[in-house]
Formats: sequence, structure tokens, C-alpha cells
Amino acid sequence: MTNKELTKLVTRLEAGEPLAAEFYARTGTARILGITGPPGVGKSSLIDRLIGEFRRQGRTVSVIAIDPTSPISGGALLGDRLRMQRHSEDDGVFIRSLATRHHQGGLTDATPQIIHALDAAGFNIVIVETVGTGQDEVEVAEVADTVAVILMPELGDEIQRAKSGLMEIADILVINKVDLMNAGTTGRDTIPSAEGKQWERPTIHASAKTGDGLASFCGAIEAHHGYLVRSGELARRRERAARAEVIRLLQSRMTASILRVLEIPRAQNILTDVAQRKLDPYDAVEQLSREIFGSQNRSS
Amino acid sequence: MTNKELTKLVTRLEAGEPLAAEFYARTGTARILGITGPPGVGKSSLIDRLIGEFRRQGRTVSVIAIDPTSPISGGALLGDRLRMQRHSEDDGVFIRSLATRHHQGGLTDATPQIIHALDAAGFNIVIVETVGTGQDEVEVAEVADTVAVILMPELGDEIQRAKSGLMEIADILVINKVDLMNAGTTGRDTIPSAEGKQWERPTIHASAKTGDGLASFCGAIEAHHGYLVRSGELARRRERAARAEVIRLLQSRMTASILRVLEIPRAQNILTDVAQRKLDPYDAVEQLSREIFGSQNRSS
Repeated sequence: MTNKELTKLVTRLEAGEPLAAEFYARTGTARILGITGPPGVGKSSLIDRLIGEFRRQGRTVSVIAIDPTSPISGGALLGDRLRMQRHSEDDGVFIRSLATRHHQGGLTDATPQIIHALDAAGFNIVIVETVGTGQDEVEVAEVADTVAVILMPELGDEIQRAKSGLMEIADILVINKVDLMNAGTTGRDTIPSAEGKQWERPTIHASAKTGDGLASFCGAIEAHHGYLVRSGELARRRERAARAEVIRLLQSRMTASILRVLEIPRAQNILTDVAQRKLDPYDAVEQLSREIFGSQNRSS
Repeated sequence: MTNKELTKLVTRLEAGEPLAAEFYARTGTARILGITGPPGVGKSSLIDRLIGEFRRQGRTVSVIAIDPTSPISGGALLGDRLRMQRHSEDDGVFIRSLATRHHQGGLTDATPQIIHALDAAGFNIVIVETVGTGQDEVEVAEVADTVAVILMPELGDEIQRAKSGLMEIADILVINKVDLMNAGTTGRDTIPSAEGKQWERPTIHASAKTGDGLASFCGAIEAHHGYLVRSGELARRRERAARAEVIRLLQSRMTASILRVLEIPRAQNILTDVAQRKLDPYDAVEQLSREIFGSQNRSS
């Protein structure tokens, strides 16, 4: 499949079309790398550097960047995403920004399907970039084999607090923009042994600007993959990803059922009664559940 | 109800207990003010100032701060929230931080219920503070009558992009930390007419540090309330809030059904087949939907 064909396929998946089952059967070989962190820490610039490193190793790389820009006001291909355009002539690189539309959280509903498409298309590495403020931390961990959390030396109060949520999912921690730090505070990287059965999360000090630390970052990604395979954790993470994807699809289908039922006049009256405080929201849910599930399925 | 009793009630609601129907019947009089904006713009400090202004006007104020800190690593009462503690001796002020737990997005499931409890308890103003990175912008607008978006003069690339999502829901725009700006760039506030049938979003230049602009901010909140009442927009927003709350409750109930079904052995086998690429996620969803909805409800 050419990158042009892949672009068309991804567009169809993004619009909600399911990936053909024969594609899914060909997935499972790509390494899925999640890159997340607060706004402004330089995730896109680091990914740009990573692409270069992986390409030098002869690996093909695709990137899905989940962009919080509203499609109404902006569109998804803006700002620092443009910096990656220098790879646009390279068939071994595929980059796609996804707008989050009205989905709440870090991923879009189509993200797992798009990962499968890139995997089936033969990319060695699939990078999923999300903005992690500590709220959507779970989501990227649901699809990735390896999660790298990117931070920078100086962050505000609120971001420092959000960090704790990000730390829980970090397999690798990268402190970017170390070029901004005082000399003497850099170079304290910790790299785990390539043989260990346990994973000790490494901290990498890097600079997307100078390229410092990029080799260590790639080494840590490689070491983590080795650990995933040796420990059996890879199979466990793939089961978790399958479970999360199926739950997400079931929820989408159920939400579609809810919205369909809310269009009927009886449901509209129920909502008006709730707004006017004539009916309690829980009573409304009880009545509407019967419409959606049928009476035998309502919880009580 | 004393603030101590209210604290206990909110804790029960946060744990998922429904608000008693007789409470709900007493709601609808409080003004619900959403305050959102990127991390680090000083939302909590501005709210602290707002509380002071409202109290001087003789109004009672409650604040629900939705905190992205993970409860596993932190808990919800940290950092700048502590600054509001000086109101802790005042019975006319009630402040509560909510952790977002595993919910994805700006609000927690219990937020609408807690707003109703504060409303029923007689608070004149209920402030809902969320961290708005442009992803969860819809959620605070779903519960609030008036949304104030807080920004600051200097923001990074990624936040600037996220702003576009926030702008769509801003009834009032506040540029905080103007004390950091050069002299001459402040004081360009726009305040809408108190009589207009249309709403022209005002821009307020404020400083939570010096108190500058706080009177203008309060004036804009007052003017927006007048507009909501005059235009009939208040009733429309309350209908939208009721709809959003009912949808959220229905989704929670459905997700509970999904998770219950996924525990049964047949469902576990289906998930394992998906993880091992023996079964397509869409086929899995088709099979599982029959378990959850019963065959008559599956979409096709």
C-alpha cells in the first residue's frame, strides 16, 4: 500500500468506517510507542528526531498525532506538526494528525483502527502522540506497548500536579529541553539493563534542539521492548488494548442508541421535565433505559 | 444545611450515590459559573478574588474544583487550592475539590449532582473550575450558565492552538496576569451593554495578584446573567444541561452493563481471540452486543 492509499484509508477510518477484517488479521507486528506530556514540552520536535534515528536504523515509522485543536476553528495540521514535513518525501515515514472533535479525552474513537491499519501496512513503529495533562493518561497507555512521558525542566504548579498521573503510565521518562538547564544538572540518565526481568523506569535527559540524549532515548525504547517480550508483559498489554478497544466500540454503539432514543417525542418531554425540575434525572434515566434496553435489562 | 453536613453529602454524591429527588425539586435558583483555562493561568487565584467580591455583595458562593491530580498519587487538596483556605471560617463559602479518577474529560460523573446539592442548599453562586486544554471544553459548557475562559498574556504554541476550542465556549474572556505585561497594553477591556439582546463577548484584563479588573469581571458576569434571562437563553442552557446530565447517567449505566458482561467467561474468550488476532474487534462487538442488549436491540 502506498502512503497515498494509506492516507485515503485513514480518512475513511477517521470518518467511522470499520477496518476490513482481513487487515486486522495482518496486525500485531508493529511496535506501538505512546508519546505524551503536557503542552509545550516539545513532544513533536522530539518525535521528529526519533523518526530520524529510526530511519537511520532502517525502520519505517508512522505517527498519529492526536490534536486538541477544534476542527471548527482550526483543523489538525498546524503549528509544530509542520516541522515534521521534512519527512514528507520519505515513503518510510507516514504522519497523520487527528482532530479530537467532540470526543472527551486523549484519543479519538478511530485511533485503535488507524493503529491497526498502519500496523497491517507494514510500519515497524507506530508512534501515537497525545497531549497529556494528567486527565487522559489512561487512554494512550491503553493502546501503546511502551509509553514515553515527556517533561521539561521548568513547569508550572498545575502541570507539576498533573505529572503524578502521567508518572503512573510512564515506561520511559524524558526530560526534554535540557539545553535550557544550567550546566552540571544534565547527564544523569538512568538506563535499565538489557537483560533484567524487572523494568526500572529510566530517566533520559534530552534536547530535541541539540539532539542530545536521543540515542539514549532510542536505547531505552529498545530495552523496554526486550523487557516486554521476555516478561510476557507484551501479551498482557495487547490483551488490555483489545479489551479497551472493544469497550470503546461498545460504548460508541450504546451512545448512538441513547441519542436515537432521545430524538423520540416521549424522550424530549422527559428531558423538558428534567430541565423544569418536574422530574428527577435518575427517574428520567429509569424511564429512558426501558426505551433503550427493553424492560428486561434495566438495572435495579 | 451546615457546611459540615454539606461536606458529608458531597462525599456521598462523589461516591456515586444519587441525590434525593426532593433536593432536585429545590434546585434551579443558583447561578452556575464555569471557570476554565489552560494550566498555570491563575484560575484558582482569580476565583479566590471572585469569592471576595461576591461576599462583599452579600452573596453566598460555592466552588467545585475539578482537579486532574490522580488520587493514587496525590489526592485533590493540593497546591493553590490551599490559597482559598482563608475562606474556610466563612459559612457563606463552600469549596470542594474533586479528583477526576478514571473519568476521561473535564468533569466527573457526580459533578451535576453536586451542583444540584449546592444549588438546593441555597448558595447564590456555584463556580465550577476545570482545567481547559481545549479537549474538555464542551463539558463545562454543559453544566454552566456562564463560562469564563481564563488566559494569560504569554502562552506556548500548543496552548495557543488549544485556545480556539476554548474560545467557542467563552461567554467572557479574562486575560489574567496583566501585571506581567508592559505598561500600555492593559486597560483595553470591552464590556457589553447591560440592555442588549445580543451578547458580545467581553475581554477583561485582570490581575488576581493586584486585584485589577476584578470589578469589571464581576460586572461582566452580572451583565451576562441579565442577557441570559432577557433572551431566553437561560432556559435553553438549562435544557441542554438536563440533556447532558441524563445522557451521562445513561452512559454510566450502560458502561456498567458492558463491564458486567465482559466478566462472563464467554466474553473473556472473545477478548482473548481479539488480542490474538483471531477475531476482528467489530465482530467481537457484534457478539457482545447481543449479550448486553439482547438480540432485538442490536443495530445493523
